[in-house]
Amino acid sequence: MDNINYRLPKRKDGQKTFDRIVETAKKLFSKNGYQATSINEIIEKAHIATGTFYLYFDDKFALYKFVLGNYRHSIRKAISEGIKEAHTRYDKERLGIRAFLKFAWQDPLAYRIIWESMFADKELFREYYETFSHDYVRQLKSAVEHGEVREDIDLETLSYVLMGISNFVGLQVLFRETLTDQDLDFITGQVMNILHSGMFTK
Amino acid sequence: MDNINYRLPKRKDGQKTFDRIVETAKKLFSKNGYQATSINEIIEKAHIATGTFYLYFDDKFALYKFVLGNYRHSIRKAISEGIKEAHTRYDKERLGIRAFLKFAWQDPLAYRIIWESMFADKELFREYYETFSHDYVRQLKSAVEHGEVREDIDLETLSYVLMGISNFVGLQVLFRETLTDQDLDFITGQVMNILHSGMFTK
Repeated sequence: MDNINYRLPKRKDGQKTFDRIVETAKKLFSKNGYQATSINEIIEKAHIATGTFYLYFDDKFALYKFVLGNYRHSIRKAISEGIKEAHTRYDKERLGIRAFLKFAWQDPLAYRIIWESMFADKELFREYYETFSHDYVRQLKSAVEHGEVREDIDLETLSYVLMGISNFVGLQVLFRETLTDQDLDFITGQVMNILHSGMFTK
Repeated sequence: MDNINYRLPKRKDGQKTFDRIVETAKKLFSKNGYQATSINEIIEKAHIATGTFYLYFDDKFALYKFVLGNYRHSIRKAISEGIKEAHTRYDKERLGIRAFLKFAWQDPLAYRIIWESMFADKELFREYYETFSHDYVRQLKSAVEHGEVREDIDLETLSYVLMGISNFVGLQVLFRETLTDQDLDFITGQVMNILHSGMFTK
């Protein structure tokens, strides 16, 4: 994700065009998938000239990486804002899961685009989850050091367990017709219950 | 998934052709995605005549549904074979997760195709996970009645938690370079640890 193959606009009118390209791409990628979306389609639906596209992006993949990076940033921002009042690891997980579920509900396109990155580019997909896992492990390690998380659990496995829970409970939420704040609290509470005491009777 | 839009071959040579169409489709769908794969490409790569394709399948979507149904069946079969020695819910979860991880490792194409079904057809995707969740809930309910699973957990949420764990620990496994039986036992053991006692120090 490190080599820069896009150029941010310098002026306000450029920013509007740039944003329109990104919004159009998000819609098309999430509707038809990365492979089935062509640059021409994006250019046409965004009402821009062909040259304008290449002013900002090297190619379709560059735009895709930008969109994915954007979502990565939005998800992290939603989570970090969600957990800013939390002082314990327990509360961080609880509020983090709640923020993630809310994000998924409010921006289902993000979901689809991240899931599809497995097809657009296997390495991008792997890098996305591995980075997320590494950061999670770092935070969990500190929680273990503070005596909040059990020290006998493999933290890499725990990070995938936690990501899996958020993502699939995210699906459960997306499959619903409606979602109130009470629903969110209920579902989050259930998840925390399982994370706190497990699922089996002792 | 109920309306039949494919026709199984009646003879052995037909079966070989049919299987070749399905295998070719699996490879192309998992490599390039459903949207980006055309019937012509499948016909060409499977070395069949155009008419032969339509002998068995109404259209590309019919073939896709068949492939997805096939995977659904293989995954369930792998899990039910994996758990056939299990007598407790705990052992069913443990051996079920282990079987799922092994399946993911041995057939990564299945993974990609199921994940992509979100794009190919939103309803198919939803139906896939909702059916899985319903079946899971039924089994968990019986485990609750037998006093094996806590009765204060919402079983729908628990089913998504369990599916999420399997699927994402499945990714963790897919991201690895190698996987021994010991690795599988270790990872499964870690997951069971979390499911048994939670992640937090009491």
